[in-house]
Amino acid sequence: MPEEDPRTLRAARPDDERRVLRILDQTRLPHAEEWRELVVLEDYAIAIAEMQVRGAPLIGTTAAFGLAAALRENADDAALAAARERLLSTRPTAVNLRWALDRVCAAVRALAAGDRADAAWTLAGAMCRAEADACRAIGEHGVRMLEEMAARRGGQVRVMTHCNAGLLATAAWGTATAPMYVAREKGIDLHVWVSETRPRNQGALTAWELQCCGVPCTVVADNACGHLLASGEVDLCLVGADRVTAGGDVCNKIGTRLKALAATDSGVPFYAALPVSTIDFDCNDGGGIPIEERSPGEVNTVYGRYSEAGSMVGVRVLPDGTACRNPAFDVTPARLVSGLITERGIVEATPGAIAGLRREDNQDE
Amino acid sequence: MPEEDPRTLRAARPDDERRVLRILDQTRLPHAEEWRELVVLEDYAIAIAEMQVRGAPLIGTTAAFGLAAALRENADDAALAAARERLLSTRPTAVNLRWALDRVCAAVRALAAGDRADAAWTLAGAMCRAEADACRAIGEHGVRMLEEMAARRGGQVRVMTHCNAGLLATAAWGTATAPMYVAREKGIDLHVWVSETRPRNQGALTAWELQCCGVPCTVVADNACGHLLASGEVDLCLVGADRVTAGGDVCNKIGTRLKALAATDSGVPFYAALPVSTIDFDCNDGGGIPIEERSPGEVNTVYGRYSEAGSMVGVRVLPDGTACRNPAFDVTPARLVSGLITERGIVEATPGAIAGLRREDNQDE
Repeated sequence: MPEEDPRTLRAARPDDERRVLRILDQTRLPHAEEWRELVVLEDYAIAIAEMQVRGAPLIGTTAAFGLAAALRENADDAALAAARERLLSTRPTAVNLRWALDRVCAAVRALAAGDRADAAWTLAGAMCRAEADACRAIGEHGVRMLEEMAARRGGQVRVMTHCNAGLLATAAWGTATAPMYVAREKGIDLHVWVSETRPRNQGALTAWELQCCGVPCTVVADNACGHLLASGEVDLCLVGADRVTAGGDVCNKIGTRLKALAATDSGVPFYAALPVSTIDFDCNDGGGIPIEERSPGEVNTVYGRYSEAGSMVGVRVLPDGTACRNPAFDVTPARLVSGLITERGIVEATPGAIAGLRREDNQDE
Repeated sequence: MPEEDPRTLRAARPDDERRVLRILDQTRLPHAEEWRELVVLEDYAIAIAEMQVRGAPLIGTTAAFGLAAALRENADDAALAAARERLLSTRPTAVNLRWALDRVCAAVRALAAGDRADAAWTLAGAMCRAEADACRAIGEHGVRMLEEMAARRGGQVRVMTHCNAGLLATAAWGTATAPMYVAREKGIDLHVWVSETRPRNQGALTAWELQCCGVPCTVVADNACGHLLASGEVDLCLVGADRVTAGGDVCNKIGTRLKALAATDSGVPFYAALPVSTIDFDCNDGGGIPIEERSPGEVNTVYGRYSEAGSMVGVRVLPDGTACRNPAFDVTPARLVSGLITERGIVEATPGAIAGLRREDNQDE
C-alpha cells in the first residue's frame, strides 16, 4: 500500500507538453498500479467504455481531453461532431459525460479550426481544476455533518458507502469521499463500511484509496449492508451519483437503491454527494434515465490476484451457459434521499432546492 | 450440465449397508461434481462447518447421520452429549440443526447403548424421507400461487430467489425451489431470477440445479435485485429460511432483508418457504437469533474455474491487509413477509398463524 494522501493521489494526470492524458488503469487496481497514456480519440473512448477510467466526474473530464485529442487530428465541424458522438456512446448513464462534451463543443465552435485543439485541451484542464475545487467544497460542506455526528455521538462516526465515489472517480478528493478526507484532516474519528459493489467490485478501489490516505475502513459483501444498518452500526450512508434529476431522484451504481431502502427503514440518513454538473436539469423523473446494460461476462467472471506473485486472472463463478443480466445503475427515488451534498452546499432532494442550484449555475455561465 | 430431474437429483445419499453418507461437495459445485464419503463424526462436523453440505434442512439431516456415526464409535451418554455438542457448534444460526440433533438424542436415550447407533441411523433415514415429503408438500402448496399468477398474467411468471433453498439444501425438491419444480411438471411458464448471493455465491448452486432440472433462470448480482423489482420484472420473491421465529421474523442468508425491503417497496409479494422444523417456537424476536460471523477470507477470496480445463482457484479481490466483516445471515422482520409456505399450507407471518402450526406439530409427536 503506497503512502499517499488525497492532496496528491490522482487517477488521471494531463501532460500538457505532450498533450496526452496519463491514467491509472482502474481495471488493474487494486492489484497493480499501471499508468497508461491516452493519445488518440480511440484511446479515450476505449478507456471510458472499458472502465479504465470510471466515475461520473472523471468520465466527463477524460472525455473533454479526448475531444481535444480528436481535434488535433481533424478540427473541422464534422470531425468535432463525430468525436463528440463517439465519446458520448461510451457510457449512457452518467450525465457529466454529455455535460463536459457539450461544454467543450460550445467553447470551440466559434473558433477557427486551427485554434480548436489547443482551446479544448486548455478548457479540459480548467474543468479538471474546477472539479477538484468543487469536490473540495463538497468535502467542506459534508464534513460539518460528520462533525455534528461526532459531537452528538461523542465518539466514532460510522459511514457506509457504495461503489467508488472517491478521488479515483474525480479529478481530486472524490465526491462521497471528500467529506471523509476533510474529516481526517480535522482529526474526526471515522470508520467507513465499504460495500463490495458487485459485479465490478469498485469497493476494492474505495478500500484501496481510503487505506492509501489513512482512513480506516472495512469491506463487506453488498448483501451485508441491510444487516449492518439494522444493527445500529451505521450513522450515515454517503454515496456518489451518476445523474440526479431535477426532482431529486439519484441514479447511481447498481445496488444503491437497496442501501437507500435499508437506510430509510433503519432510520439512518442517506446522502448523495455530487458536483452540480451531475444534475440533469432537463430530466424530471428517474424513470427516464437510460440504464446501461453491461456485459453478462462481468457477472460470470471475477477478476483478482491469483498468486503471491500478483498475476491477475479471471475465474468463472457460474455454470457454463448460464444467462446473466447486468444493469449497471439503478435509481433511488428522492423520497429515500435525505439530501444532496454539492459544492454549493447541502440541499434537500426536492425540485425547489435543486432549481435553486440551477439558477446559480446559470449565473456562473 | 448433466440431465437430471428433481425426482432423482440429490445432494446426499445414505449408504445403509456401509453406514456412510455420500455427499455432493458443494464447495466444488458448480465447477466439479465430486462426491465425498462421511464416515466418522469429524467428517460430518467438517462437512457442515465448511459448507460441503449446506442449507438449513440438509444441515439438520446430515447432523442426524453424524450422530449415528458417532454412536458407532462410542454410544454411552457422555459420548452422545459430546457428539451433539460438536455437531451443534458447527453452524449457529439454522435451527434445524438443533431440532434434528435433539430429535435423535431423545429417540436413542431410552435405548441400550448397543442399540443406539442402528436406531439413530434408521431415524436419520426416516427424517430424510419425511423431509423430502415435506418439501414436496411445500411445492404442492406453493405452486397454487404460481398457477394463480400465471392465470392472472396470462403468461410467464417471474420469480426472484436468493441463495440456494433448493434440492441441494434439502433431502429432495428444496424449499423455495419445490414450487418451481412442481410448476415445471405442470407446464407453467416460469422464469427465475437468481441472485448471486455473495460472498459464497450460492446463486451458482441454484442456477446449476435449476438448469439441471430444466427451469429457465438468469443470474444477477445481488445489487441488481432492487432495480429488477422496481422495473416491474418480478412477480414474486421466494426464498428459504434458516430460522423463523414464533412472531414470523425470517432469518435467512445475508442479503435477504434487502430483497424483502425492495419487494415490499415495489409491491411485489415476498414469501419464505420452509418445513415446520425451521420454526423456532421458543424464539419470539428475530433480534434474539445468533448471527453467524464467518471468515473475512470469504469476502476477500472468490473461488471459480480458472481455465477451460476446469481447475478451480481462489483469487483475492481486495488490497492486502483490508479488513472485512462477514455476517452470514440477516433477519427480515415479519412486517415485510407476505407469508410462509410450509408443508402444512401457506400461513401469514403472524404469531397466531404460526402457533397454529405448532399445535399440529405437537399432535404429530
